[in-house]
Amino acid sequence: CSLCAAAVWRERPFRDAENLASCFGDFIDRLPISGKEGILRLHPDLAGRLAQAGQLTSESTREQASAGLNTMTEEERQRMTNLNKRYTQKFGFPFVICARENKKDAILRGLGERLENAPQTEAITGANEVKKICRLRLLDLVKPDSQLNSPL
Amino acid sequence: CSLCAAAVWRERPFRDAENLASCFGDFIDRLPISGKEGILRLHPDLAGRLAQAGQLTSESTREQASAGLNTMTEEERQRMTNLNKRYTQKFGFPFVICARENKKDAILRGLGERLENAPQTEAITGANEVKKICRLRLLDLVKPDSQLNSPL
Repeated sequence: CSLCAAAVWRERPFRDAENLASCFGDFIDRLPISGKEGILRLHPDLAGRLAQAGQLTSESTREQASAGLNTMTEEERQRMTNLNKRYTQKFGFPFVICARENKKDAILRGLGERLENAPQTEAITGANEVKKICRLRLLDLVKPDSQLNSPL
Repeated sequence: CSLCAAAVWRERPFRDAENLASCFGDFIDRLPISGKEGILRLHPDLAGRLAQAGQLTSESTREQASAGLNTMTEEERQRMTNLNKRYTQKFGFPFVICARENKKDAILRGLGERLENAPQTEAITGANEVKKICRLRLLDLVKPDSQLNSPL
């Protein structure tokens, strides 16, 4: 999101990807609830877009594959679609979960459990998942175990 | 800014453009200082881009013309460029002022005065100007004195 990038710009130079991810995380934490909800609305809808895999970014496609979401049975897909629909109707923002840290069973369970949350709690929970996804993507941008020669 | 739009989405339906502008304003007010700075960094740099008028949006071009910025003398342009450079160096975000509410003399005076502000004060001042610009642009989107037949 362009506002997140513009907001953390003041913290330059960044030591490394972890440091940049931590600045994004702090910014997301400081957003009011409506801002956290906004962040979630800008995020691709995990389950709802399962049928339209071609429209996701390559990062999202890889992440969903690593969670096994591309190998769901028809029944699992139907259950996820139904839960996701109820979630979006209740909260007004899409269900976001860090797919790389959860397999499809954990995602289905998480969807059911998080449906019971209060809206404010759930905005915070979803924003925390965005922070995890953002951190893992930033770490991907630098080679594993490599030291950056120059600050970002 | 896409995050602002996504954040106020929860407030739908909007009664009219004033109501929508007021929701954007509330969201900007609730942003932390880094977020207000981010909003400013996403805004076109008024004085710095004077020489590149073709790259501004048509709204910005009209607004700058209404302030008389397109009829500055070479000396005025030089003064504005210098002040603007000092401003950006001091604050790390561009000088933003609602051009439709200020003529070029007021803008030059404002630049000089606001240069003396503390960074936090100036982030708030700039964000308030963004709110004015946003409101006037939203009002432009609906015909003057017209009643909307359906909520936005």
